[in-house]
Amino acid sequence: MNAPDTNNPVPRLLTAQTGPLLALESTLLERAADIEAWFRQQWLKTPPPFYSSVDLRNAGFKLAPVDTNLFPGGFNNLNPAFEALCVQAIQAAMQRVCPQASGVLLIPENHTRNQFYLENVATLFNLIKKAGFHVRIGSLMPDLHEPMELTLEISGRKLLLEPVQRDEDRVHVGDFYPCSVILNNDLSAGAPEILQGIDQDIVPPPNLGWHMRQKSNHFGFYREVAREFAEVAGIDPWLVDPLFRNCGQINFMKREGEECLEANVELLLEDIRAKYTQYGIKEEPFVIIKSDAGTYGMGVMTARSVEDVRTMNRKARTHMASAKEGREVTGAIIQEGVYTFEKMGEDEATAEPVVYMIDRYVVGGFYRLNSKRGNQENLNAPGMRFEPLAFDECCSAPDPDCGPDERPNRFYAYGVVARLAALAAARESQAVAEIRAQTASVAA
Amino acid sequence: MNAPDTNNPVPRLLTAQTGPLLALESTLLERAADIEAWFRQQWLKTPPPFYSSVDLRNAGFKLAPVDTNLFPGGFNNLNPAFEALCVQAIQAAMQRVCPQASGVLLIPENHTRNQFYLENVATLFNLIKKAGFHVRIGSLMPDLHEPMELTLEISGRKLLLEPVQRDEDRVHVGDFYPCSVILNNDLSAGAPEILQGIDQDIVPPPNLGWHMRQKSNHFGFYREVAREFAEVAGIDPWLVDPLFRNCGQINFMKREGEECLEANVELLLEDIRAKYTQYGIKEEPFVIIKSDAGTYGMGVMTARSVEDVRTMNRKARTHMASAKEGREVTGAIIQEGVYTFEKMGEDEATAEPVVYMIDRYVVGGFYRLNSKRGNQENLNAPGMRFEPLAFDECCSAPDPDCGPDERPNRFYAYGVVARLAALAAARESQAVAEIRAQTASVAA
Repeated sequence: MNAPDTNNPVPRLLTAQTGPLLALESTLLERAADIEAWFRQQWLKTPPPFYSSVDLRNAGFKLAPVDTNLFPGGFNNLNPAFEALCVQAIQAAMQRVCPQASGVLLIPENHTRNQFYLENVATLFNLIKKAGFHVRIGSLMPDLHEPMELTLEISGRKLLLEPVQRDEDRVHVGDFYPCSVILNNDLSAGAPEILQGIDQDIVPPPNLGWHMRQKSNHFGFYREVAREFAEVAGIDPWLVDPLFRNCGQINFMKREGEECLEANVELLLEDIRAKYTQYGIKEEPFVIIKSDAGTYGMGVMTARSVEDVRTMNRKARTHMASAKEGREVTGAIIQEGVYTFEKMGEDEATAEPVVYMIDRYVVGGFYRLNSKRGNQENLNAPGMRFEPLAFDECCSAPDPDCGPDERPNRFYAYGVVARLAALAAARESQAVAEIRAQTASVAA
Repeated sequence: MNAPDTNNPVPRLLTAQTGPLLALESTLLERAADIEAWFRQQWLKTPPPFYSSVDLRNAGFKLAPVDTNLFPGGFNNLNPAFEALCVQAIQAAMQRVCPQASGVLLIPENHTRNQFYLENVATLFNLIKKAGFHVRIGSLMPDLHEPMELTLEISGRKLLLEPVQRDEDRVHVGDFYPCSVILNNDLSAGAPEILQGIDQDIVPPPNLGWHMRQKSNHFGFYREVAREFAEVAGIDPWLVDPLFRNCGQINFMKREGEECLEANVELLLEDIRAKYTQYGIKEEPFVIIKSDAGTYGMGVMTARSVEDVRTMNRKARTHMASAKEGREVTGAIIQEGVYTFEKMGEDEATAEPVVYMIDRYVVGGFYRLNSKRGNQENLNAPGMRFEPLAFDECCSAPDPDCGPDERPNRFYAYGVVARLAALAAARESQAVAEIRAQTASVAA
């Protein structure tokens, strides 16, 4: 992990509407024991994802997830002080997932030129090793035929990538036959044949790659989770839930499906406006349009009106049409834009919290900062940087001795909302598994 | 928890015989993945104690546990940086012990005048609360009929002690009916009637109080664990196992059973001398004689020869005869004395590590220091003080990038040996439960 940040990065909350969020935080604190009991019940019904990261937006009046990643790629951005917590959580997760495992194969993404991502792989490798497992790195790169040692440019750490091989129903690298496979590869291009039908456990399951997931599906489950949670916490679910609509068929280049998009943008803006009126919020509503399948920050657009969509120029269209590994965008989700009023650093960079979880445990987080982007924009774009949360701000526990607006408690709120998103992902994952089981039984 | 110690308390190891321990540490590092896999197997067979603390002695040539407490009373001595780790481990432990629990009753010891112990109760209370439980403190003090608020002298924190009441098969305090009971009371005086046969889960089980336990029984299980572990790690079990013998009937005041004691001291000293010769250790062997039932540092004697026992004076006899809550000492364990060569602080105080565990997780530790005691003596005596371990020395994970004699790795060794003792306690606990089940079925 990176060196600790001694400047204790704490963003100040730039918003006039602190009322509702403080009310939300107070409620979470008051009801922490009931909320935690509810989470425990939920995890008994639906096991948590092996790991996950959730991007949050904190508007002051609202705190909501905007993306839930089941193959988190920023473990290197966590504060090193979180390491023991990560190690302990991996031990707990493996106990549940595969108690017999002693050898683990870590399969990362193929992009070996992204030095930041490689740092993530090195950190994750160390965490798994420190959790007490034999671990090696198996690469799916099609042109890799021999083990390849990389020396990382940033930390100087070394990584040995070995080609994944298959021997009947088991994968291996060299003479190392692991008990289980940990995927840090979202398999955007589909689950590769070499992993299909193997005997070893694979976590997370390969069918949770973005080639299978849709954001609208995830946020559908999230809506359900938020409603149930809101009853336990006694709040309006909207305070933690971004409204959304989706369009099944959109082709930005061919200008197909635009009517659906415009109609939904209009309807969603109206819904948000109604909520803003209800809470006396003076800001201008906006929506975020993005690919319904996963992207790496590509194909994301902010719109304040239907006009914004209508007048989108060719460059913007090309941008919207591009997605990871060149796949065409065919479905879009139109999501309530959540302002982020957190700012940080001398350059007053716009900030959004990213929370990391392993199993049911919040194990750390950081701020994604972008001084080139405004508070209505996607920060996962050029100019982005990260600031780890300091250890004493860990989100796992509220501190009853602090006021609700003090740091440990704001971060507890982050941890609660992030876990709601993880729970939605757990239900999504269970539904995918059930669909696959049904398909398999029909086929049989 | 106490304020963090910024002086980074690291004892220097005062010994000429660093060879064997460094060899031991190197072995633990090299085999960490196998050792951890072995621990995982063991915890599947025998669930870990809810919590435990283990006193270790580090002789340089040997690292061994000398006491295993199943009702640890020093959570206040842990570094506050360990808090998140403790909270997460409590969540994991409760998930296994009682996943449905939302209300927990914490039952502490009755001694309300020990301000250090009360700090421990307050810290433990906060940890359980932060783990997401409704928690209240139920007292077994016979003269407590109304709730009593205590303001702690050291931290200024407040504790509300409420009398435990019983309503048919359930215990409660006021209108609070907990799902489970966490005991921080070792029930030296026997399991009280009010807890017998209740419907709620009690962790740890009340039959693990010292009125039921014998050190010789525990160290018998430990010997077995150490032998199995030594095979996995490829070491001589003696390097982690203190030799011992026991005498069933001793009455120091009445001078009964002295022959047994003298014979066993002689035999044990011979065995230790043989081991010292084998490893070329020049120190003088010694033994520790203590009550076979639990004590709070009372009734502990160091002997270097049979003469030491024979010439024990009346004052020493009275001391040996006294035990917690005035019970007469009737059995004694004679344990290999393990030098502690760790020294710390300006006064060169003798130091021994104490490791804390919750469930299977090492969650922190501290040094017990005593500048008035030598390296062959029990440090749990007047003059004792504590130094928390700093966070980055957490014992849960070895650091492959450090040499075997560097701090994280020495502390990893502490965590391994402490967990061996916790595993012995787990087997002891299972045996007790089986004996009780048999007794119950015979009675039925």
